[in-house]
Amino acid sequence: MPRWEPEARDRLRDAALELFLAHGYDNVTVAQITERAGLTRRTFSRYFTDKRDVLFAESEQLPAVLAAAVGRADPDLAPFAAMLTALGEVGDLVADAHAAERRAIVQGSPELQERGRTKFAAVTSALAAALEQRGASPATATLLAPVGIAIFRSAFDRWSGQPEAATLPDRIRETAAELAANLQPGPAASHF
Amino acid sequence: MPRWEPEARDRLRDAALELFLAHGYDNVTVAQITERAGLTRRTFSRYFTDKRDVLFAESEQLPAVLAAAVGRADPDLAPFAAMLTALGEVGDLVADAHAAERRAIVQGSPELQERGRTKFAAVTSALAAALEQRGASPATATLLAPVGIAIFRSAFDRWSGQPEAATLPDRIRETAAELAANLQPGPAASHF
Repeated sequence: MPRWEPEARDRLRDAALELFLAHGYDNVTVAQITERAGLTRRTFSRYFTDKRDVLFAESEQLPAVLAAAVGRADPDLAPFAAMLTALGEVGDLVADAHAAERRAIVQGSPELQERGRTKFAAVTSALAAALEQRGASPATATLLAPVGIAIFRSAFDRWSGQPEAATLPDRIRETAAELAANLQPGPAASHF
Repeated sequence: MPRWEPEARDRLRDAALELFLAHGYDNVTVAQITERAGLTRRTFSRYFTDKRDVLFAESEQLPAVLAAAVGRADPDLAPFAAMLTALGEVGDLVADAHAAERRAIVQGSPELQERGRTKFAAVTSALAAALEQRGASPATATLLAPVGIAIFRSAFDRWSGQPEAATLPDRIRETAAELAANLQPGPAASHF
């Protein structure tokens, strides 16, 4: 690849995010994105299939990357601990400077939310399969994977609100600890 | 409504489920459903918007019903315990004789899986809002709601495999206890 290509990709992405935030995702065309970036439609097509892809291209690899991280985690770790370690590792990849912007754009569009749900379903499946590979039973893997994704999403929200205050892996550990505390039967739980 | 209507609705639903299971959801038409049920298209339209609606009509009310159950739960219960109580209550409504069939059909079709994800997203939002109403912080509510749905789905799988062996509310409690045990740092977790 020519050396200028990564720059073109970043310019297109930055232009798209600015336009989506300013005018709403539905109101922005690929032509407007390329015009703002000072690049051609052909260059756009080299990096992205369509304008939606600008938001999701970076998460295409997420299922495989997360599964690999689960597989690499210390073999002595219990499934839940291995999952948190892997989520923290992968989280560092997605927690870039534009993460909060992408999220705001996705939340503003039902079409994008649906695409996001499909993405999270694929990540959840890959995570469950990786936990089974580590020896978790199918029932445990199927239970833990969506819980891990819930922890990740909640931690991501907390992190992106104040990205300087803590790292995403720290927020993941903090969120998991909060969940564990909520699951413990407290005094009130005797009613249940 | 005339007294015979619920029977017509059940006949249409039973015919649809049989045909979906036998031939695959994508290969079944509304005409085949009405023919098998011995009823007209007009009668079909009185109960269902389309063939997909046969599978999801009963869960349309789920977000509101679940939110109401959370609101009704003993005010002394902590959010997580209130959520489990509500899920058990609502679970009894959806755990009917056809639940496992519906699930098998949905899992066989990407279109239906997508519709299912949209449904679960709506249920999750309603659950989070209801937990906030009970005084949970927004961050805690947003964390607990998807975990509750993950528990429910896992418990539902376990229940539907052997519906006579335990009630769905029992499976929900059992699954929640298993999750809590998995979240506890064991000996291996000291590596984390």
